[in-house]
Amino acid sequence: MRLALIGAGRIGKVHADSICAHPQIELAAVVDACAQNAEVLARKYSSVVRRVDDVFADAEIDAVLIASSTSTHIDYLERAAAAGKAVLCEKPIALDLAASERSAQTIADSGVHCALAFNRRHDPQYGALKQALASGRIGNLEVLSFTSRDPAPPPADYLAGSGGIFRDMMIHDFDMARWLLDEPIATLHATGSCLVDPAIAEVGDVDTAVVVMTTVSGRLCTISVSRRACFGYDQRIEAFGSGGMLQAENETDTRLKIIGTQGQLEEPPKWFFLERYAEAYRGELDDFYRSWKEGRVPRATIDDGVEALRLADAAQRSLEEECVIRFA
Amino acid sequence: MRLALIGAGRIGKVHADSICAHPQIELAAVVDACAQNAEVLARKYSSVVRRVDDVFADAEIDAVLIASSTSTHIDYLERAAAAGKAVLCEKPIALDLAASERSAQTIADSGVHCALAFNRRHDPQYGALKQALASGRIGNLEVLSFTSRDPAPPPADYLAGSGGIFRDMMIHDFDMARWLLDEPIATLHATGSCLVDPAIAEVGDVDTAVVVMTTVSGRLCTISVSRRACFGYDQRIEAFGSGGMLQAENETDTRLKIIGTQGQLEEPPKWFFLERYAEAYRGELDDFYRSWKEGRVPRATIDDGVEALRLADAAQRSLEEECVIRFA
Amino acid sequence: MRLALIGAGRIGKVHADSICAHPQIELAAVVDACAQNAEVLARKYSSVVRRVDDVFADAEIDAVLIASSTSTHIDYLERAAAAGKAVLCEKPIALDLAASERSAQTIADSGVHCALAFNRRHDPQYGALKQALASGRIGNLEVLSFTSRDPAPPPADYLAGSGGIFRDMMIHDFDMARWLLDEPIATLHATGSCLVDPAIAEVGDVDTAVVVMTTVSGRLCTISVSRRACFGYDQRIEAFGSGGMLQAENETDTRLKIIGTQGQLEEPPKWFFLERYAEAYRGELDDFYRSWKEGRVPRATIDDGVEALRLADAAQRSLEEECVIRFA
Amino acid sequence: MRLALIGAGRIGKVHADSICAHPQIELAAVVDACAQNAEVLARKYSSVVRRVDDVFADAEIDAVLIASSTSTHIDYLERAAAAGKAVLCEKPIALDLAASERSAQTIADSGVHCALAFNRRHDPQYGALKQALASGRIGNLEVLSFTSRDPAPPPADYLAGSGGIFRDMMIHDFDMARWLLDEPIATLHATGSCLVDPAIAEVGDVDTAVVVMTTVSGRLCTISVSRRACFGYDQRIEAFGSGGMLQAENETDTRLKIIGTQGQLEEPPKWFFLERYAEAYRGELDDFYRSWKEGRVPRATIDDGVEALRLADAAQRSLEEECVIRFA
Repeated sequence: MRLALIGAGRIGKVHADSICAHPQIELAAVVDACAQNAEVLARKYSSVVRRVDDVFADAEIDAVLIASSTSTHIDYLERAAAAGKAVLCEKPIALDLAASERSAQTIADSGVHCALAFNRRHDPQYGALKQALASGRIGNLEVLSFTSRDPAPPPADYLAGSGGIFRDMMIHDFDMARWLLDEPIATLHATGSCLVDPAIAEVGDVDTAVVVMTTVSGRLCTISVSRRACFGYDQRIEAFGSGGMLQAENETDTRLKIIGTQGQLEEPPKWFFLERYAEAYRGELDDFYRSWKEGRVPRATIDDGVEALRLADAAQRSLEEECVIRFA
Repeated sequence: MRLALIGAGRIGKVHADSICAHPQIELAAVVDACAQNAEVLARKYSSVVRRVDDVFADAEIDAVLIASSTSTHIDYLERAAAAGKAVLCEKPIALDLAASERSAQTIADSGVHCALAFNRRHDPQYGALKQALASGRIGNLEVLSFTSRDPAPPPADYLAGSGGIFRDMMIHDFDMARWLLDEPIATLHATGSCLVDPAIAEVGDVDTAVVVMTTVSGRLCTISVSRRACFGYDQRIEAFGSGGMLQAENETDTRLKIIGTQGQLEEPPKWFFLERYAEAYRGELDDFYRSWKEGRVPRATIDDGVEALRLADAAQRSLEEECVIRFA
Repeated sequence: MRLALIGAGRIGKVHADSICAHPQIELAAVVDACAQNAEVLARKYSSVVRRVDDVFADAEIDAVLIASSTSTHIDYLERAAAAGKAVLCEKPIALDLAASERSAQTIADSGVHCALAFNRRHDPQYGALKQALASGRIGNLEVLSFTSRDPAPPPADYLAGSGGIFRDMMIHDFDMARWLLDEPIATLHATGSCLVDPAIAEVGDVDTAVVVMTTVSGRLCTISVSRRACFGYDQRIEAFGSGGMLQAENETDTRLKIIGTQGQLEEPPKWFFLERYAEAYRGELDDFYRSWKEGRVPRATIDDGVEALRLADAAQRSLEEECVIRFA
Repeated sequence: MRLALIGAGRIGKVHADSICAHPQIELAAVVDACAQNAEVLARKYSSVVRRVDDVFADAEIDAVLIASSTSTHIDYLERAAAAGKAVLCEKPIALDLAASERSAQTIADSGVHCALAFNRRHDPQYGALKQALASGRIGNLEVLSFTSRDPAPPPADYLAGSGGIFRDMMIHDFDMARWLLDEPIATLHATGSCLVDPAIAEVGDVDTAVVVMTTVSGRLCTISVSRRACFGYDQRIEAFGSGGMLQAENETDTRLKIIGTQGQLEEPPKWFFLERYAEAYRGELDDFYRSWKEGRVPRATIDDGVEALRLADAAQRSLEEECVIRFA
C-alpha cells in the first residue's frame, strides 16, 4: 500500500513511525501546510514532500492518512472519496455532528475504504478485555467504568478550539464504551467542574467530568475524566458482571519495585498516549491495511466516529441544561 | 460502662462480641423481642436476659446499644433520651427523614450521649485514607469514587421493607462521602437498573445504581453499588486530587499467591461485612465508650444519620423523577 | 485449663494477651524472677503473682507456659514433667543439643502433654500454604525458599548469649522447612557474613546468612536471613513445584495505595513479630489447649525443637568448617 | 554498519529481526551450514546467502554476528580477529575455559571490536535495577538473589552437548551477578538435583540447582535455577541492602486482572526469552553498534564471557566434589 501522510505534526510523527515499521506499507508522500514540518518528516523517513492536490491526483497513491488539524478533516475525507483513495482519518471527524454525518454519507456513497483512528480499540490490554467479555468470563456485563485522565491540560489556545472536554477528550471513552457495551445507549447524564485551571472555565469548558449512561438493556456505564493527573496517563477500564470482574490497569515501563521505609513502590503509570498506546498505533495501522487488503470492515469506522460525537454532543447539552438526555 | 444490648439478631451478635472483648464495657443485659434469641446470646456471653422496660428503668445501666429492627429505633432512642442513657444506635435511624430529624432533635434536647453505628468510619484502612487526605498527600481532593457491592442480595421479604437500595445500602457510602468530602453537597443525580433479580424490580427497587454528586466547591463524587458480586464484598474507595491518588483496595484473608499455567492468583476479597469490617466494629464500640468517657462528640453522630438519609431520599427522588436534585 | 505463665518479659506479655482472650484458659498465676515484672502483668490481666515452687506444687494448676530466659527452660521442663503439668515451652529448648535431647526424653518418659512454641506453624498464611502443598496445587514440591529478616539486630549483650544467628533466629526457618518439606534433610551448607554491625563479628557471629539444604528425595531448600531490614519484618516463603508456585508474601496493615509522581506506593511490611504473628500466637495457644483437651499431638512438639536445633548446630559447624554437612 | 549474520537458527532469527529494525545496520549477508535455513532467512529479510569464507574476505562487511552452534564460535572469533571485522558473539564463547581464554586473548591482540551477547544486561528492567543500585537507593548491597527458570527443558540430544546446567543456563545469571555485584567473587558453592526428568540425570546433569557465592567484601549472592516452570519463564532478581530492597519481577503481556470466585487473577509471566527479552535483544544490538561507532567498550565483553564461564566451571566442580570453591 502506497500511503500519503497528510499532517506532519505530533500525531503525524506517530503515524510515520508506524508506517515505516510496517512491512507492507510505503510512506509515499508527506503533506503539511507548513513546508518545513513536512520536510523534516520526509527526510527522517526517506519519503518526499508533496502538495495535497498532487497526492489526490496521483493514481499511484492507494491511501491517505489524515492527521492534519480537525477543521480540515471533512475536506480531505471528501477529496479522498472523490479520488477513490482508501482513508484512515484521525478523530474527531469534525466538531460539528451534522457535518460529520454528511461526511460519513459521502464516504458511504463513494465506497472508498475508510477507517477512523480510534487507537484504543487496538490496545492489546483492551483487546484482551473485549475477548474476555465476549467469551463470558464475567457472565452478563452489568456495569462498565472508565477512568481517563491526561497528565496535563493542553495549552489554553488549543482548548478554545477543542470543542470542549467531551468532544476533544471523552470522545475516546464514548467510543470504547460503545465498542465494549455493544448495544445502544438509552440515556446519558453529565456532570462537570473546573478544578484544574480557571483558564479552562474562562473558555466555557470544564476540566473534570463524569458521565453516566444506561443501555437499552439497563447496563450502567460511567466515565470519569480529568485534564490533569500529576502521576501520568490514568487509563483504566473496569467491567463488572454477574460472574466476575475485569480490570484493565495502568501500565508501567517495568515491573521493578523498591521497598523502603516509606513502603513498597511500583513505577508510576506510563506518562502519556505516545508511551501508553505505542502498540495500539501500530495495531491501528495494521488493521487499516489488512481490512483494506481483505475488503472487510475496519475495527473502527467513520460511523463509529459519528456515533461517538453524538454522545459527546449529548454530554455537552446535558451539562449545560442539567438534564438527562434520552436517546430514541 | 454497663451496657444493655437491645437486639440479639445477626448484627446484635457482632456487637456482643465487641462488647465482651472490650476491657471497660460490661454486657449488663440482653433484650430481644424473641426470648430465645436473647437467651442464647446472654448465655454465650455470660449476661442476663431482661425486658426493655426494666433496662431503661435500671439506674445501674449506663448505656444501650440499639441493634433491633429499624422500625423500633426511634422509640428506643426516645426512651434512652428520657432515661438519660448513653446510646449507640444502628443505622438507619429510620426510613422516614422527618421522623429521624425529630428524633435527632429529641436527643439533642435531652443532652444524652448518642453515636450512630456507621461502622466504616472506624475501619483502619479508611482511617488511613482520611488521614492521608487531611495531611495533603494528594493535594486538593477533586474526585472521590466509591465502589460498594454486596456478595448477594438479601431475601425478598427483607427487601420489601428495606426502604430501597439508597436508604438500605448506599446510606453507608453517603455517610463515607460526607465524612471524606467534609463540605456540603450541592447536587445529586441517581441512575439505577434491575439486573440481578427481577424480584427486586417487583418490589419497586433497583439492584444496581450509580449516584453522582457535586460539592459546593465543585468536587465530584461517584458511588457505584450492586446487590451482588459473586467474588465477595467489593468495598473500594478512590480519592483523586491535584497531587496524586489514594486507593483503598479490597482486603483478603492472607497474601498467599498461587502461580500456575492460568496466571498469578491472589485470594478473593473478604466475603462480607462481618469479615471485612471486624476491626471496624471493635473500633466503633471503643469510640462510643471513649467519647462518652471523655465527654466529646463521637465520630458519627445522630445528625450524620439524618444527613445520610437526606442524601438517600434525594437519590430515590432523582431516580424516580429522572432529575438532578439541587441542595440549598 | 488453669495455666501459670512463667516469664513476664516481652514474649510473656504476648502470651498473657492470648491467654486472657482465650475463652477456655484461665491465667491462674504469673511467675517471674523479677517480682515487679510479675506484679505488673498480674495486675493488668487480673491474675496473681506466685513463686515457681508453689506453681509446680499446686494441684489446681493444669499447665505451665515457659516464657522465661532460655537458660531456665530445661529446668522448668523437667519440673513440669515431674509435676505432671502440661507444658507449652518457648523456643529454643536450650542452646545445647545434647541437653535438649535429654529433656525431650524426660518429657517423653513422663507422658506429660508438651508443645513447643514455634509460632509460625500457626500463622494463617503459612497454614494456607501448607494446605495448598498438601492438596497438590503445585504438584511435586521441588524448591522451597525462605526469606527471613528482622527489622533490626538485638542489643549487643543479648547477641553474646544468643547461641548465634542459626540457633537464635534461623531456628524458626529450620522448623518451618521441616514442617513444609515433610521429609528428612540429607545435606546442609551454610554461608555467612557480617555486614550489618561489626559488633556482631566481635562476638563471633554473622548477621547475614544463607543455608542450602537437600532432602533425601533431592528437593532443594534455601534460607536467607539478615538481622536488619530497614523496611520491617521480611517474612516470605516460596514453594516451587512441578505444577506451579506458591508465594507467601509480606503482610501490611492495610491495602491503601498512594499514587504520586514517584510511583505507586503500598504500605511497608508489618514491623516485627508482634504485629506480623499476632494471630499465630493466638492459634498456637489454642492448639496447645485443644491438643491437650483432645489428647492428640500438638502441631509442634519438643522433638521438633530438638530437630530444628540439630539443623542449627549443623549450620554453625558448616559455617565454621566451610564444609557440607551430611545427615545419616 | 554492514553486518553478516552467521547462523540462521532460532537465535539467528531473533537477531535478524533486530538487525532489520535497526536504522543504521544493514543485514548484508546470511551464512548457515544449512543452505535452506540461510535461504529462508535471507529471503524474509531481503538479504543474500553467502559462504562464510566470502564474508570474511569481503572488505565491504564491517561486522559479523556469530549465532551458529557453540562449537564453531572460537573458529569464527579468530577469523573475525584476523579479518578485522567487528564481532558480536553469542554466549557461551565455548564450553572449554582455556580455549575461551585463548580466544579472548586473540581478540584483544587483534584490537577488533568485540561484544558478547549477554542479552539480559540490556533488559530495561534490569537496567533500572542497576541504576537504582548505583544511585544508592538501597544503601549498601548485602544480598543479591536470582531466580531463573526456563518453561521447559531442552530436548535430550541438546542436553548431552550443552555443557551442563551451569555452563548452558546459569551462565546468564553468573554474568548478571558479576555485572550487578561489581566486585570479585570470593567463594562459590553449588547444590543440585535431578527432579524434572530422569533423562537429564542419565547424561550426568542436574535440572534444579542452587549456587551461593560470596564477594570479597562479604556480600552474599544466591542463584536458583530450574529447567522447568510450568507457568512460563521465571526471571526475577532481588537486591537487598542496608537501606531497602529492589525486586525485578516477572513481566506479563498486559495488566488485565480477572476477579472471580477463585480469586484475583493476573496473567502468567511471559512464556520464554523471545517474549521476555525482546527489547533486550534490540538493546544489545544497538549497544554493539553504538560502542563500535563511538570506539568505546561494549556493555558485555568477551572477557565477561570468560569470567562467567569460570564461575560455571567452578559450580560444576563444586557440585561434583561437594566442596566450596575459593577464588584467589
